[in-house]
Amino acid sequence: MSGNHAHGVPRGLPAAVDIYDTTLRDGSQQEGLSLTVDDKLRVAEQLDHLGVAYIEGGWPGANPKDAEFFRRAAEGELRLEHATLVAFGSTRKAGSRAEDDPVLDHLLAARTPVVCLVAKSAEWHVTETLRTSLTEAVDMVADSVAFLRAAGRRVMVDAEHFFDGYRDNPGFSLDVLRAAEDAGAEAVVLCDTNGGSLPFEVEAVVGAVRERVGVTIGGHFHNDSGCAVANSLAAVRQGVTQVQGCVNGYGERTGNADLTAVVPDLTLKMGVASIPRERLGRITTVAHHIAELVNVAPDPHQPFVGVSAFAHKAGLHTSAIARQRTAYEHVDPSEVGNATRFVVSEMAGRSTLALKAEEIGLELPDAVLGEVVERLKELEHRGYHFEVADGSLELLLRGAAGWKQDFFRLESHRVITELREDGSFVTEATIKVHVGDERVLATAEGNGPVNALDAALRKAIGPAYPALSHVHLTDYKVRVLDTSRGTEAVTRVLVDTTDGERTWTTIGVSPNVIEASWAALEDSVVHGLLHAGAPPAG
Amino acid sequence: MSGNHAHGVPRGLPAAVDIYDTTLRDGSQQEGLSLTVDDKLRVAEQLDHLGVAYIEGGWPGANPKDAEFFRRAAEGELRLEHATLVAFGSTRKAGSRAEDDPVLDHLLAARTPVVCLVAKSAEWHVTETLRTSLTEAVDMVADSVAFLRAAGRRVMVDAEHFFDGYRDNPGFSLDVLRAAEDAGAEAVVLCDTNGGSLPFEVEAVVGAVRERVGVTIGGHFHNDSGCAVANSLAAVRQGVTQVQGCVNGYGERTGNADLTAVVPDLTLKMGVASIPRERLGRITTVAHHIAELVNVAPDPHQPFVGVSAFAHKAGLHTSAIARQRTAYEHVDPSEVGNATRFVVSEMAGRSTLALKAEEIGLELPDAVLGEVVERLKELEHRGYHFEVADGSLELLLRGAAGWKQDFFRLESHRVITELREDGSFVTEATIKVHVGDERVLATAEGNGPVNALDAALRKAIGPAYPALSHVHLTDYKVRVLDTSRGTEAVTRVLVDTTDGERTWTTIGVSPNVIEASWAALEDSVVHGLLHAGAPPAG
Repeated sequence: MSGNHAHGVPRGLPAAVDIYDTTLRDGSQQEGLSLTVDDKLRVAEQLDHLGVAYIEGGWPGANPKDAEFFRRAAEGELRLEHATLVAFGSTRKAGSRAEDDPVLDHLLAARTPVVCLVAKSAEWHVTETLRTSLTEAVDMVADSVAFLRAAGRRVMVDAEHFFDGYRDNPGFSLDVLRAAEDAGAEAVVLCDTNGGSLPFEVEAVVGAVRERVGVTIGGHFHNDSGCAVANSLAAVRQGVTQVQGCVNGYGERTGNADLTAVVPDLTLKMGVASIPRERLGRITTVAHHIAELVNVAPDPHQPFVGVSAFAHKAGLHTSAIARQRTAYEHVDPSEVGNATRFVVSEMAGRSTLALKAEEIGLELPDAVLGEVVERLKELEHRGYHFEVADGSLELLLRGAAGWKQDFFRLESHRVITELREDGSFVTEATIKVHVGDERVLATAEGNGPVNALDAALRKAIGPAYPALSHVHLTDYKVRVLDTSRGTEAVTRVLVDTTDGERTWTTIGVSPNVIEASWAALEDSVVHGLLHAGAPPAG
Repeated sequence: MSGNHAHGVPRGLPAAVDIYDTTLRDGSQQEGLSLTVDDKLRVAEQLDHLGVAYIEGGWPGANPKDAEFFRRAAEGELRLEHATLVAFGSTRKAGSRAEDDPVLDHLLAARTPVVCLVAKSAEWHVTETLRTSLTEAVDMVADSVAFLRAAGRRVMVDAEHFFDGYRDNPGFSLDVLRAAEDAGAEAVVLCDTNGGSLPFEVEAVVGAVRERVGVTIGGHFHNDSGCAVANSLAAVRQGVTQVQGCVNGYGERTGNADLTAVVPDLTLKMGVASIPRERLGRITTVAHHIAELVNVAPDPHQPFVGVSAFAHKAGLHTSAIARQRTAYEHVDPSEVGNATRFVVSEMAGRSTLALKAEEIGLELPDAVLGEVVERLKELEHRGYHFEVADGSLELLLRGAAGWKQDFFRLESHRVITELREDGSFVTEATIKVHVGDERVLATAEGNGPVNALDAALRKAIGPAYPALSHVHLTDYKVRVLDTSRGTEAVTRVLVDTTDGERTWTTIGVSPNVIEASWAALEDSVVHGLLHAGAPPAG
């Protein structure tokens, strides 16, 4: 069955590779990740916006969600400008005909230009899991590819467990690839399914396979050894021209190769083209947007796109960076749409704080800066964390410069939450506040204590400050700081707010989650009023 | 000044390497990470327990905390059985004498057996940042090493920006290493300070350096390219015998090389000894313990030690794993003290759920299993997440089997939180509950609404169930699920509880954080009573 592939894939580093994103299929196997069809459509749009070559949309037939995704995509709900949509599925079952196979049928029904078939390419996987013969396993690949080709589909084959299988029985693993090629597959993808390979092993195997295969070779890596990105790069160095992975490295167990690292490494460090060069600057925004769509908190320490990827905290580095940016930045952050950030913390000292004050247009005398450093230290000791709360930090700095908010003055508030005997749950907040010379009482209901307090405050001061109607909370995070004491521990609340143009984060810390929430809420509103240019009341 | 190093470090893979942990120095540069001296002492104990060779404790003199750490360590508060403590600092300043240098003075005052000096080893770094001559830069290294050696210290030298510097001016970078060696340093460490190197670049540079240096060569990598682990392994393949990094990959920007991946890769995949072999099984526990000490939520997807590293969700995989575990596990999880975990979710289907029921000793008929799958899907659609809430899942499964908790029946509750005019903050919860035939009313204060509710519930039902006194909440987490709607979004509360032996997690979901908290709290207590073997009341 094996053809004659005298020349193989060209040696050496390719000029360009195709990026194949599998976030919607393999990525969604990640624990804790669950996507609706709408989510999937919106993620696909983002991937297209980034400029990947292929988007694997799912496994039609494996679950109703994926079938619906392909149906709605085919019906025009997904307009791809750049990417090609791929449906994923398995080869025909052992001992049956491709024509009768329901999986292949579902793949045709998905109406995608490209189909990617997963094929068992490790001997033990065939004999132990599939429980059939090696000949039949090869025939399953050949038949299924031929069937889909005859139906007009472009076909790729994911060779599952390839690296482990090749180590034990290279002849069989290669037979699977050649069967795919001979039957008309345009690409064979070497999968490190259990993620255990190391870069030097990948180089050796890909180097050997390259001599035996005439079609495009792809690489698909998982991060179980912590080397998925390096394995992808090693594969490309050996001639792989299709790289599979997921934006943000989503995936089962430890995740798939993180495309947001692979793509910049290829482009900026290895000179290998992948997504359109001018779109590389979109990668940070797309990564964060997709994180929001799939509702997974972005990893701040993610290479290239993390909010901390170009953040500088140590005093030593910050002063060095002021002199020469490349000293501590391996690439220009703007290349990937990210930015240098100076982090304020007790370790940073006054030079960083002075930079920060300058950023918001404040000039603080040295003595005042010293006081702020001390005050920061004390607050951070109590659980505050100004690195992540730019809004509250600005108020703190302005306060140090003598500013005092005069928009309103709180007298008291009270929140009542009741589970009644009839099963209904009611929350109500009452707030007493002075706006200018006027004392205002307002009560509002809410679907939770913070929501009720927010509503009551807006009810009380909103009439005096119409600008407040453009200011909205967008996120609310709670972190328990000392986990050894359960609900008795200190609670840190972060509130994100937007006025439609700018976004700011404020912070509150207290043993009482309501008190902490109030502090963050108050800072949020004061910050919003300040930047709306609202005149102080009265 | 350069010596004659004809032979260099032996070629090929070393049999063993030293692990050098810098969590307490470089790792603590991570944004959001701030350690007290007590924290540092406890982290050091954990590192020693794991069996690393060197623990870099900090930079004495750079901040008072680190000086105090070394003082208390020297005074007997830190007893290391296995590891050697290292103090970190810079070489003498340009144009001064080592004898007069305050940094070197602080290093001696730290009283550690080993000192690690950071030396500028890139030409541009010397001329641009240090603003001195290359000759003086080399002399600074030689003088400082000789001074510390004369004072009886073992000395290592971290060659900062080595890989970038070597690319531009290899002669100068090598001169720095040789100056260190000639002055008596026992190791020179090649640092990829801005983290931009790729494994094949590391291999080439280390390979060249190995020919020119006679002492131990170390490697220190940051993860800015997503390759810190692979770079460490590549360096070892070229003869590096000291690997610097941090447990859990802590560190500035994208972090340092994650030792919890490097060590298992070296041991299990490359056959290179590092920590004592029999301690490898401690690495998951130590990683999680340190995460708790430094108060950083552990990354569930971390290779080897993450809670998801050996978790299986997809239906395909779970059934395959039941047949052959190595199919989707690159190493035996018990080797690193981790475990296989089958994840229950809407994607898993009934086979996984049946496994889970079996785990808790329940036999569910097929029809009931089908109903549970449907119920799970519906609840997960509403924001529940049973993958992480084993306690609530067990109650759900038992409920499906016909069990109903009879410990107590809630009638109603009410929580009042007040910020009074005098600035005091008061929270009070009242609960009305039936225990057997008795109706009990209890009111309790707390430092927050959940704490007050917990206290009131215990006050109400505690007398009937003395076993409850051993049951304590250990963690309380809040996640806002739909971040686009701020405080109006759905809130998911997770509560961790322990009875001193077992730990369980329960869940509540509601737009109202108090309602969600109550649901998780109620499940927590019911689960505790169930496993305490408490008889139903009445």
